[in-house]
Amino acid sequence: MVKIIMHGCNGKMGQVITGIVAGDPDAEIVAGIDVVDNRDNGYPVFTDIDACDVEADVIIDFAAAVAVDKLLDYGVRTQTPIVLCTTGLSDEQLAKVKECSAKVAILKSANMSLGINTLMKLLKDAAKVFSPAGYDIEIVEKHHNQKVDAPSGTALALADSINEACNEQYEYVYDRSQVRKKRDKKELGISAVRGGTIVGEHEVIFAGIDEVIEFKHTAYSKSVFAKGAVEAGKFLKGKPAGMYDMADVIG
Amino acid sequence: MVKIIMHGCNGKMGQVITGIVAGDPDAEIVAGIDVVDNRDNGYPVFTDIDACDVEADVIIDFAAAVAVDKLLDYGVRTQTPIVLCTTGLSDEQLAKVKECSAKVAILKSANMSLGINTLMKLLKDAAKVFSPAGYDIEIVEKHHNQKVDAPSGTALALADSINEACNEQYEYVYDRSQVRKKRDKKELGISAVRGGTIVGEHEVIFAGIDEVIEFKHTAYSKSVFAKGAVEAGKFLKGKPAGMYDMADVIG
Amino acid sequence: MVKIIMHGCNGKMGQVITGIVAGDPDAEIVAGIDVVDNRDNGYPVFTDIDACDVEADVIIDFAAAVAVDKLLDYGVRTQTPIVLCTTGLSDEQLAKVKECSAKVAILKSANMSLGINTLMKLLKDAAKVFSPAGYDIEIVEKHHNQKVDAPSGTALALADSINEACNEQYEYVYDRSQVRKKRDKKELGISAVRGGTIVGEHEVIFAGIDEVIEFKHTAYSKSVFAKGAVEAGKFLKGKPAGMYDMADVIG
Amino acid sequence: MVKIIMHGCNGKMGQVITGIVAGDPDAEIVAGIDVVDNRDNGYPVFTDIDACDVEADVIIDFAAAVAVDKLLDYGVRTQTPIVLCTTGLSDEQLAKVKECSAKVAILKSANMSLGINTLMKLLKDAAKVFSPAGYDIEIVEKHHNQKVDAPSGTALALADSINEACNEQYEYVYDRSQVRKKRDKKELGISAVRGGTIVGEHEVIFAGIDEVIEFKHTAYSKSVFAKGAVEAGKFLKGKPAGMYDMADVIG
Repeated sequence: MVKIIMHGCNGKMGQVITGIVAGDPDAEIVAGIDVVDNRDNGYPVFTDIDACDVEADVIIDFAAAVAVDKLLDYGVRTQTPIVLCTTGLSDEQLAKVKECSAKVAILKSANMSLGINTLMKLLKDAAKVFSPAGYDIEIVEKHHNQKVDAPSGTALALADSINEACNEQYEYVYDRSQVRKKRDKKELGISAVRGGTIVGEHEVIFAGIDEVIEFKHTAYSKSVFAKGAVEAGKFLKGKPAGMYDMADVIG
Repeated sequence: MVKIIMHGCNGKMGQVITGIVAGDPDAEIVAGIDVVDNRDNGYPVFTDIDACDVEADVIIDFAAAVAVDKLLDYGVRTQTPIVLCTTGLSDEQLAKVKECSAKVAILKSANMSLGINTLMKLLKDAAKVFSPAGYDIEIVEKHHNQKVDAPSGTALALADSINEACNEQYEYVYDRSQVRKKRDKKELGISAVRGGTIVGEHEVIFAGIDEVIEFKHTAYSKSVFAKGAVEAGKFLKGKPAGMYDMADVIG
Repeated sequence: MVKIIMHGCNGKMGQVITGIVAGDPDAEIVAGIDVVDNRDNGYPVFTDIDACDVEADVIIDFAAAVAVDKLLDYGVRTQTPIVLCTTGLSDEQLAKVKECSAKVAILKSANMSLGINTLMKLLKDAAKVFSPAGYDIEIVEKHHNQKVDAPSGTALALADSINEACNEQYEYVYDRSQVRKKRDKKELGISAVRGGTIVGEHEVIFAGIDEVIEFKHTAYSKSVFAKGAVEAGKFLKGKPAGMYDMADVIG
Repeated sequence: MVKIIMHGCNGKMGQVITGIVAGDPDAEIVAGIDVVDNRDNGYPVFTDIDACDVEADVIIDFAAAVAVDKLLDYGVRTQTPIVLCTTGLSDEQLAKVKECSAKVAILKSANMSLGINTLMKLLKDAAKVFSPAGYDIEIVEKHHNQKVDAPSGTALALADSINEACNEQYEYVYDRSQVRKKRDKKELGISAVRGGTIVGEHEVIFAGIDEVIEFKHTAYSKSVFAKGAVEAGKFLKGKPAGMYDMADVIG
């Protein structure tokens, strides 16, 4: 059982985590921190983190960047590990995070989804088998029609993860319509599909002789990040000072 | 029950059709034509079509272009409809096909697959519903690593089919990595994946608000063309002179 | 442009529809009806439908069953067509719906999703081609782990739709682990997958010789019903008295 | 570069392997063994294995059970490792295989596909992350309509592999249509789809909160076993005496 302080408990992600923890026998939110205290969460809410006198095993943070400095100080002072999910930190704040991680455990990750992080690990293992055996590797990602960048950052991270496991031998290809030639072994094609409100789908394909192996991740909402944060919280309980990320959670 | 003369019976596709018809209670091969007569097919084989004195409802042709002239003459003379699947005909031969179709039923199609042709028809109906309702349309095709063109001819045919049903409002987009912008309503993205020995996979996606509808065709071998030819043969039995294609078979 | 009165505008579905219409150039909500008037929707809200003096082309209803009687009276009196989406009506209310449809256009459907209804129509056409040609038909549906019934009502509706188009020749099969035998041509297998929070996925498969055609519908949230209701509203504008359903919208 | 003796070189699988090796720069067939010597393979063929005087790094075997005894003797005598793919061995032969493995390296595996074996390994790792985090696990397999058993042996092997990694906590469920209840955490649903000529498709699903991770294997023909055998041959070169299986190849 892990006891959690939810930092930013009345925000969208804070509420999603509150719901997830309510259904998880291995976790409990013992206090919340938020600038507003406008609803009944079933746990005490403090509008000032320094007023919080509830002991916890870990703090999960999905708040605003402006609140991160006091959070870090609190974590160090009370020796409570922090799952730091707030994004948009300044360079000064990032430096402070690093500095504080010498004194308390802090977990920070580019993508908090348990599924994507696990996939990233398994894809390395898969690539080490399939790439030397001559299988071709391709990625297809699908996102909503408002997304301005292509391919997605996650698709590139998956590709980089594979490429790293294969001695950086691949060259990413985004368009095959402009040339008339057979696929080169060193190509790793990445296709970006855009449409509707698709939250995010990533498919990695290993295609060999009369055989295709696919790894696919589908996100239905941003709740996947909340679930990952809770698992990170369980992992971080009792850990010594240092910087951690989701790869450590997966082990 | 349709009685078939198999023209090119000892070639690869002729043999595949022989196998399919053997398991089909509604069709029977009553004679084969081939320049070589080197195996037991369970039906008489003539090395010269003009020597064939077996009556049939239809001729299915998967032979060499050089044999097509005599075939057309035979079809006209015996008034036997022809499913013409041999490709690579010369302009003179194509003219002769047209001319003969005034005297006997001839069916000829760019793609003999029942699945692809049915999909092409259904996609028009789907597009007429989903396009006005604001759903985005995208196509992903996958083929083996020896294919030199991208996107595939079939992917373009599917796209054209949709575009025709939507008053030609779409612009095909093959690469999104070079711009940083939201998807335009008029885009129809086509992605080409290449790898291994994939025979051919086509996926058409209609993406709306929190809803995705997919139509997918997977070919496992070139037998799909054989199966389509048999169905075309059943359809062509008893039909009056004229040019037909697979769209007529689907009805 | 269709002018809409949103009945139940401050409920969950009413709010989703408000959002959808805000982004739709062909529709506008001119008034809302709800027992509570607790937020700014950008249109006038009446807590009593009889007080509503705004003219509209159509009423979209996602409210409580108790409010339906007054809604029907209002529709008849003002001659405004009704897209009736509230469920759980009593037998008396259903009789009243039928009675009122003699005086004003009313649209009511088991499933308001544009995607599912379109699929249902296209599957009939597909089945008429693939079933006589000997393709096997199977359905796989996936839903969240809280669903108590299997297979889903929608899976059964899709199967019935196919079966109806094929002269009721199919027998539904839910389990193949208890027998050791080849698939019979008259089987239509329906598999139910349960896991996580999957909103709803339905896949219909036509499998032939070396060819598979798949039709797949994925719902990401209940918003799909909201979108369908708006399209139904556009369709119902100006329609004469009578009962309609989503099949009419698709045409 | 691995030098291969192809045992059963003129059989179906022997020919497939001959084709695969012809395109593989890291492998070469230096001799073939077969009871018939009826075609030009580009390498010498011996109708009696004992007459074979060509040195090789490994023997790949896809022959008849009756030929296995002499093969084993040859492997021991010449100290050439054996990739043993022939099935249907008698108990006496299986005992002899074990006995010979004390003197020479022998690799034997239930399924020679590189893809399935790699998947089996990765699924264990995935299950160790996703199962404790509360994700539901389900398997869907698809095969042709002539298959008499359901679910497939491979689906059961994948399930067993997952279950073993999770302390045997799962109970396999094949049918949900006979009960009306929520999914239990301990269920692992296995669905069997049958249709057309589908060679073999296996999909393993991990479904969590608003997130689904899928692992899918598609076989297009039995060539997948040939490819796996070649990779096994590369692995087995120079290995000491002992029994090996495909899990060792993947490492």
